[in-house]
Amino acid sequence: MGNVMRVADLPTPALVVNTPAITRNLDTMSAALPGARLRPHVKAHKCTALAREQATRGHVGFTCATPRELLGLADAGLTENLLLANESVADARLRAMADCGANVTVAVDSEATIDAAARNGINNVLIDVNVGIPRCGIPADEAGALADVARARGLTVLGTMGYEGHAVLVPDRAERTTLTDTSMATLERAHAAVGGNILSGGGTGTYDVNTTATEIQAGSYALMDTAYAKLGIPFELALAVVATVIHTNAKWSVADCGLKALGMDHGDPTIDDATVIFCSDEHVTFAPNTPVRVGDRVLVWPAHIDPTVAYHDAMHLADGPGVDASVIDRWAVDLRGWDPPT
Amino acid sequence: MGNVMRVADLPTPALVVNTPAITRNLDTMSAALPGARLRPHVKAHKCTALAREQATRGHVGFTCATPRELLGLADAGLTENLLLANESVADARLRAMADCGANVTVAVDSEATIDAAARNGINNVLIDVNVGIPRCGIPADEAGALADVARARGLTVLGTMGYEGHAVLVPDRAERTTLTDTSMATLERAHAAVGGNILSGGGTGTYDVNTTATEIQAGSYALMDTAYAKLGIPFELALAVVATVIHTNAKWSVADCGLKALGMDHGDPTIDDATVIFCSDEHVTFAPNTPVRVGDRVLVWPAHIDPTVAYHDAMHLADGPGVDASVIDRWAVDLRGWDPPT
Repeated sequence: MGNVMRVADLPTPALVVNTPAITRNLDTMSAALPGARLRPHVKAHKCTALAREQATRGHVGFTCATPRELLGLADAGLTENLLLANESVADARLRAMADCGANVTVAVDSEATIDAAARNGINNVLIDVNVGIPRCGIPADEAGALADVARARGLTVLGTMGYEGHAVLVPDRAERTTLTDTSMATLERAHAAVGGNILSGGGTGTYDVNTTATEIQAGSYALMDTAYAKLGIPFELALAVVATVIHTNAKWSVADCGLKALGMDHGDPTIDDATVIFCSDEHVTFAPNTPVRVGDRVLVWPAHIDPTVAYHDAMHLADGPGVDASVIDRWAVDLRGWDPPT
Repeated sequence: MGNVMRVADLPTPALVVNTPAITRNLDTMSAALPGARLRPHVKAHKCTALAREQATRGHVGFTCATPRELLGLADAGLTENLLLANESVADARLRAMADCGANVTVAVDSEATIDAAARNGINNVLIDVNVGIPRCGIPADEAGALADVARARGLTVLGTMGYEGHAVLVPDRAERTTLTDTSMATLERAHAAVGGNILSGGGTGTYDVNTTATEIQAGSYALMDTAYAKLGIPFELALAVVATVIHTNAKWSVADCGLKALGMDHGDPTIDDATVIFCSDEHVTFAPNTPVRVGDRVLVWPAHIDPTVAYHDAMHLADGPGVDASVIDRWAVDLRGWDPPT
């Protein structure tokens, strides 16, 4: 009696979460980095329901890449400690964050970003320090002076932030560790001049080799992707795109999961027991080792989780691996885009 | 008096259409392929407002990659002649298309896809023929027999379809022409066995070298992207992502347009008067030839339009190029995802 929907019954393409696997990932990370040692980055999943799972495990401080992510967490009641780990000079968005009722901190790395924070009612900032990746962040030698500028504008400087993004996907653990150590030495040098209690940094690839940061901004560990899976870290692939086979012949098969269902910057996805040949807008062409038939479902594993999730409006939670698992819940991907829905 | 919003006033990242440029693109294509010679592909823009512009110019038949695109066009009243140029075995979606009130044709390339069309009330089909790209489509030699199967199931076979996707982006025009000619010879061979009046094929890159197809399925020509711009075809870049500079130093600058605002399968975007270094989730790092300041706006040109548009909920129409142009309209990107909103 009753209709149990299986993964194979979902309209495709659709995101599917292996619930036992994500649960193990969440628990493994919480054991390694309990409580405030982990500040989960929501950009990887853009999902308040998943953020709640992280909060339930004691991680009530979150990292956000966009004001929209931060405002969405606040709207969901996750207000305790929200960090915009990114620069913004958007007045309306900074003002909305200042007024959202959450404990908000934003990253700053210039007088312009300090001015923007101050004039829009933001109280707490971290000085964002460049620790090796050519992106945002002030040089370590200038961090102390910038902190003084922030304090002169009435801001509270809680500490420093520095993301070793050039290290997190380095396959060799020793090399990853060396790069991280060098980056964190830079961050510590800046921090000595800045002051405050927080050194924020790290990611899924450096969660256990970065022992300097007071809080680790890992996000991908929960769902994982094939790029991070190459590192040998103790987190399992927990998110796939289920697709329907729509064509098959003696040489290749085609399923309905393409460029608009996958982040492609880390390359092609993978399919179990098959070789992926290429993706186009709504297709993945692959050579299966075991023949498939039109109508069969396959699981497509993304190379990069963050821009994959951002194409979908929901994740479907399955009670196990594979396409015969039952769908037991649906989580909205509710932090997409750059402004709350109007 | 009054508030004219400029491109530079938009919250970023945001899609911006250069209206004079898209108008020239639309008119140039309509002059080359008038009326039914062009069956615009909506997968490139996913926008019923833009489809209306195409219909206004006499192209009332449209090409769709997903049932959702087709149903959205039908819902917008563009019901005259809609082709799902893709295979589907999804009962609910096929039934919705059959019942949507539009004149609907779907591509089939197997008994399974014929069965699915027939059992869900679809009347008209094209036999999808493989003309060289390893994706969907039956071998030409088997197309006639498959057409007989379709007719035996009560379907009306209107003709054939074959997309020379391996030719459309080949830079050398002579080589592109040769590949197209070979593909279309294959399609004609299949068509001789299939019958019907339609040979559907072609794309923006082959719009003028494919003289065999009775209708050209071009889509990218309207907005264009940097990949197609390399071909020397007479269509201008008309769509950019406007972004805000959030960091700058002596070596590089950073703007807020990253992997979640850009399709990346054709590589990095470009920025005028600058060299793009890399993209991350919410950032593009670039080396400007002329210094920029935090808060400046830059236009980021996508390498591949289709998966770029699919990340955004609207295009903002500007009355000219550049960030000082005025925003004169907003078009919803309303054909995203794979099912109509519930």
